This record gives sequence, structure tokens and C-alpha cells, in this order.
Amino acid sequence: MNVNGKSTRALWFKNEQLWVIDQKKLPFEYQEITLITSQEVIEAIKDMTVRGAPVIGACAAYGVYFAFLESLQTERFDKHFKQLTTAIKQARPTAVNLMFAVDWMCQKITANSSDDEVLSLAQSYAEKDIDDCLKIGQYGQKLIEDIYRKKQETVNILTHCNAGWLATGEYGTATAPIYLAHDAGIPVHVWVDETRPRNQGAYLTAWELQQHGVPFTIIADNTGGHLMQHQKVDIAIVGSDRTTLNGDVANKIGTYLKALSAYDNGIPFYVALPTSTIDFDLEDGIKNIPIEQRDSKELTHVKGIDPNQEIREVQIFPKNVKVANYAFDVTPAKYITGLITEKGIVKANKTEISKLR
Amino acid sequence: MNVNGKSTRALWFKNEQLWVIDQKKLPFEYQEITLITSQEVIEAIKDMTVRGAPVIGACAAYGVYFAFLESLQTERFDKHFKQLTTAIKQARPTAVNLMFAVDWMCQKITANSSDDEVLSLAQSYAEKDIDDCLKIGQYGQKLIEDIYRKKQETVNILTHCNAGWLATGEYGTATAPIYLAHDAGIPVHVWVDETRPRNQGAYLTAWELQQHGVPFTIIADNTGGHLMQHQKVDIAIVGSDRTTLNGDVANKIGTYLKALSAYDNGIPFYVALPTSTIDFDLEDGIKNIPIEQRDSKELTHVKGIDPNQEIREVQIFPKNVKVANYAFDVTPAKYITGLITEKGIVKANKTEISKLR
Repeated sequence: MNVNGKSTRALWFKNEQLWVIDQKKLPFEYQEITLITSQEVIEAIKDMTVRGAPVIGACAAYGVYFAFLESLQTERFDKHFKQLTTAIKQARPTAVNLMFAVDWMCQKITANSSDDEVLSLAQSYAEKDIDDCLKIGQYGQKLIEDIYRKKQETVNILTHCNAGWLATGEYGTATAPIYLAHDAGIPVHVWVDETRPRNQGAYLTAWELQQHGVPFTIIADNTGGHLMQHQKVDIAIVGSDRTTLNGDVANKIGTYLKALSAYDNGIPFYVALPTSTIDFDLEDGIKNIPIEQRDSKELTHVKGIDPNQEIREVQIFPKNVKVANYAFDVTPAKYITGLITEKGIVKANKTEISKLR
Repeated sequence: MNVNGKSTRALWFKNEQLWVIDQKKLPFEYQEITLITSQEVIEAIKDMTVRGAPVIGACAAYGVYFAFLESLQTERFDKHFKQLTTAIKQARPTAVNLMFAVDWMCQKITANSSDDEVLSLAQSYAEKDIDDCLKIGQYGQKLIEDIYRKKQETVNILTHCNAGWLATGEYGTATAPIYLAHDAGIPVHVWVDETRPRNQGAYLTAWELQQHGVPFTIIADNTGGHLMQHQKVDIAIVGSDRTTLNGDVANKIGTYLKALSAYDNGIPFYVALPTSTIDFDLEDGIKNIPIEQRDSKELTHVKGIDPNQEIREVQIFPKNVKVANYAFDVTPAKYITGLITEKGIVKANKTEISKLR
């Protein structure tokens, strides 16, 4: 997608360097930085310079490439390669894509592999996720086109959190249909939920859309219901962190409330996800998906720009208050119109989801 | 209610001075200030030192008392009194309580009224709203008691925005049942919605509860649905800006989403309101209540404390983004379990509401 008018990805490899966008500075500052050692990759993952499960995975795959080169310089390749790649895996201990990417690379690499072979392994790993997003975008674009064909006016799409290209490398999941529809000339307008806590909607989704030239309006998370009551939303598309076999969807906290109001107002509510995030072993999402509670500072403190244009963090709640920061909620399948996957659009039920296995 | 362990109201009259809490500094700083002229009253209303419709009304009533004293010092009482009281009415042009309070006072005052008569008029005006809140509290307290009797454990109450004593002088509307239950020894815990934009939950409701010693936890507005799904909320109580004859309720944006999720999870959802805020001429709230759009700065900027303990405002959204700031939404009557009024608890329907006329 475009940044400052130039086609850009969340990470790319050029001249023996891995380039990434420093996401922890967004939206207040845009900076591309380069990584050239496995240690730099680890640091970038640890300090959240790179974020979003698929991008972390891709970054780790290139980290393994650097670890391969570094280990070749030593006398005991196997020992060093094992050490370095283990360290990459531990950069963020709960990130499934990170483990998966490192294991996937390591299984295919020996001391006899060539530099080029290992590099193209990393590249093909990164491409796979992006290819899924493209397909999600193509299927989802049709939904938007259908609405436009009937309405003959700008299609209003509501999204929550950031399921955008910054997290997946390119296109995003929930945003992929939006970018593709926009690029195909369909007039779209996006209602961007601020997405408290952590404000990923206002910080990241809005920044992405602004850079690519897609019209949008940021709203408080409280606002979606009112807009839907007044037919100001034609379709809602959100991402998913985990989807059960029954079609229940765990996503950023607040997704459930938007789904309820879409249902109450007869507005289609879609979830965009690669099938790799479906947990085929889990049925009842509300009962069985544990919901992480995160640091209260994500709620009590916010970052912004002061009148002197400096980035500052301020505490916005009274001191010594108790705060609960649940990161996700589960939207029951009955409120979901459909799942947009790289294998096509399916209903959120066991019969249809089983076919995606 | 208590502030720093001392029983306090949002405004009180003592030694020929009107005392108010400077609400624009809350929750970061607590300051009581005195007003002794009609001009000072006007300034305090204009710059939101005092806020909340009932408190603005009470403050204006005392402003009329000051205007009366000031006009007696002039040679043309009627002309000056008219001028000064008109200026009070214009302090915030859309505040219905403000107009009502000034008119109510003026109808009863002549150049021959005594100082004491006019002062006690202002006092009785202020007391009426507080008396309504006390009755709302007494009726609502029974609901909480009933839950406690069955559950024999802490009653978890969710509230949205600030319908507290800072806005009404004492007790509040939605908070009145909570304060009375707490003071009666019933164990309660309040989930306080942050309430974006303007954060009145985190800024004001949390501060009120903290000062009075009521246990509470602040949550993002996105969180209520998840808590209700997991039976962590026993009852929701919110305020109302305007209620129709049909029982539709206009209140702070986001109220509708919480009502939907209470309904989805079988949790009682009550609205606390004085009958003076019922619009008996209006039926369909969604069609007929115009929803104010406010300054986008309420969403794009927040105030907080920086690491040097200074109050600072920062801009939290990217620059040059479009923002929509709808202030209220309408919750359809069908999602409301009941209305808690000073005349008793009624169902949210035309038959029952008509009896409150």
C-alpha cells in the first residue's frame, strides 16, 4: 500500500538488509529502519518496532537467514545456529507465528544450504501470508461491489482495531477488501473505531488509510451503534485473533458490541481471517477461549503530541484507581454474517468451517 | 457525598458566598471556589467550572439572588435586574435548566422582595433537584438490595458516563442508588465506563466513587459486553438526557451498545431520571431526537498528567484526520428493563410513562 505516495510494505529485503517500518513511532513519526543481524531482528520484535503476528513471523524468518549467515562464520555451525534461532523464538514468547516461522525455516536448513536458498525460503514464508491477504481482499471486494451496485453511492464500511497491512505485510485482513475496492475505483468511506485501549484504530488504521488515500472518519468506540441505527453503515468488516470450529470469533475487545448492533439493525457483519487462525479443536468460544488481561497502563496512559510538537505520554485517569484491561472478547457465531478467508467466504458454522480444514 | 472524608455538595451557600467545586480541574486537582457576583456566576457557567444541567440551574438561581442584590444598589431596579438575569440566561444558550431556573426565580421576585425571601427561593430551587435524586436513590437502592439478598455476594453494577452528584448537586441520578446502597452497608462494586469522548466516567464518576469510598474499576467502553457475557455484571444503571413518552432514552453515546449487550445476556438495564427530563410530546426517539455533533477536539485531544505532575493536553490522533463526534445515542425502550424516577420505578412504555405526567 502507499506511504507518502510510494508503494510500501511493512517489511522488505534489499541490498542484504531487512527494512522495516518503526511501528512504535506511528502515527506521529514515520521511519524506515534496517536490520542486518539476528540480534537486531530480536530487538525489533522485543521492543515492538515490528508488531502484528504475520509481520513478526516474516521478520523472524529473515532473522533466521541472518542467523544462518552468522553461524557459517563460526566453527560449530549447528551449535550456533541452534542458539541464535532459539533466541529469536524467545523474542516474544506468546507469539504463535514467531515460533511457527522459525521452526518452518529451521526444518529446511542445514550447514550445506546455500545463502540464496535460505534467503528465498524467508522470502517465500513472507509471501505466503501476503498471498492469503490478497485472496481475502479479492473475495471481500465482491461484497463491497455488490453493495455499490445496488446503492450507487459511496459504500460505508465500519472496522474495529487494526487488521491492516502494517500487521500482515501488505493488504491486511479486514482492510484488504477495502483497499482492493478503493483501488478498483469503487467509492468507499471507512468508519474507523478509535479502539481503546491502545487506540490501534486511531493510531494505525487511520494512518494506513490516510497514506493510501482512502476516505475515512475516526469515531469513538461508543459511536458505531448510533451510526448503524441511522443507516450510516453498509457493512462491518473486522479481523480475528482466533476463530473456533463453531464460528465464534475472538477479536479485539468491543468487537462483540459492534456485532450486536449490526445484528439489531440488519447490517452485514463480516470477519476477515486467514484459515491458519482457525482453531479446529475448539467449539464454544465464550466458554473456552481464555481472555488475556493486559497491563493497566495501556488504559491509564496515552501518547500524543504536545503543543510544541513533542511526543509525550500522559496519565489520563485519577491516581490509584483500579483498572481492568481485557484485550479481547468473543463474538458468538450467530451474530456473524460470514467469514472471509483466502479459500472463499463461508457461513460462521461448523459444517462450513469444517470444509476449510 | 464525601470529598477527602468530608460531606460535600457540588455547590453550597455560606457567609454570603456561593461555593462551587471547580469541575474543569477534576480529577487532577480539587479546588473549591467562591462566587459573590452575578458576573462571577456567569463566568463559572460559561467556562464550565460548574457543569451538569441541574447544577447549572442551581448555580443560576443563586446568580439571580446576586443580580437582585446588585440591582437594589441602582436607581432603576427593574431595568438592571432584567439586564443581569438575561445575561445569566445567555451564559450557556442550550441549557434548558438554566433558562428554567432563571425564569422560575424572576417570576417570584419584585423590587419589594426581601433579601432573605430571594435567598430562600434560590435555596429551595436547588433543594428540589436534590430531593428528586434522593428519591431516585431510595427506589433504586431496593433493586440492588434484592440482587444482594439473592446473591449474598458483592453486587456488580455497570454505569456509563457521569450521572453523579457532581452534575446534580448531591446523590446524582444513576449513582444515587449506588451511594445509598453502599451507605446502607450493601457490598457493591461499580464497573465505570471510561466514556469516550470527554472521558466523564474515568474523570468524574471514578473520582466521585473514589472520594466516597465506593469500590470500582474503570474499563474501556469496549469492555461491558465481555463482562456481561461472563456474568460479571448484575445490573446496569445509566442516566438520561431526554426520555420519550414511548420510553426511548437519549443518553451519552454508547449507552445503546451496553443496553444491547445487557439484553443479549439477560442482565437488567435501568435508566435513572427525574420526570422533569421526560418529553411527553415525543414518541419515537430514534426518529425524532436530534443528535448533537460536538467539537472534534473532544476526541482528538486529551488532558492528563505528565511525568512532572503537570496537567497537559496532547493530541492523540494523526494530524489532518476527519473525526465525527456524536454526543448522544438513543436506546430503544425494548432494551430497557425500567425507569427509576422520583415517583417510583416504571416500565419503559407509553402506558406507564403517561402516569408520570
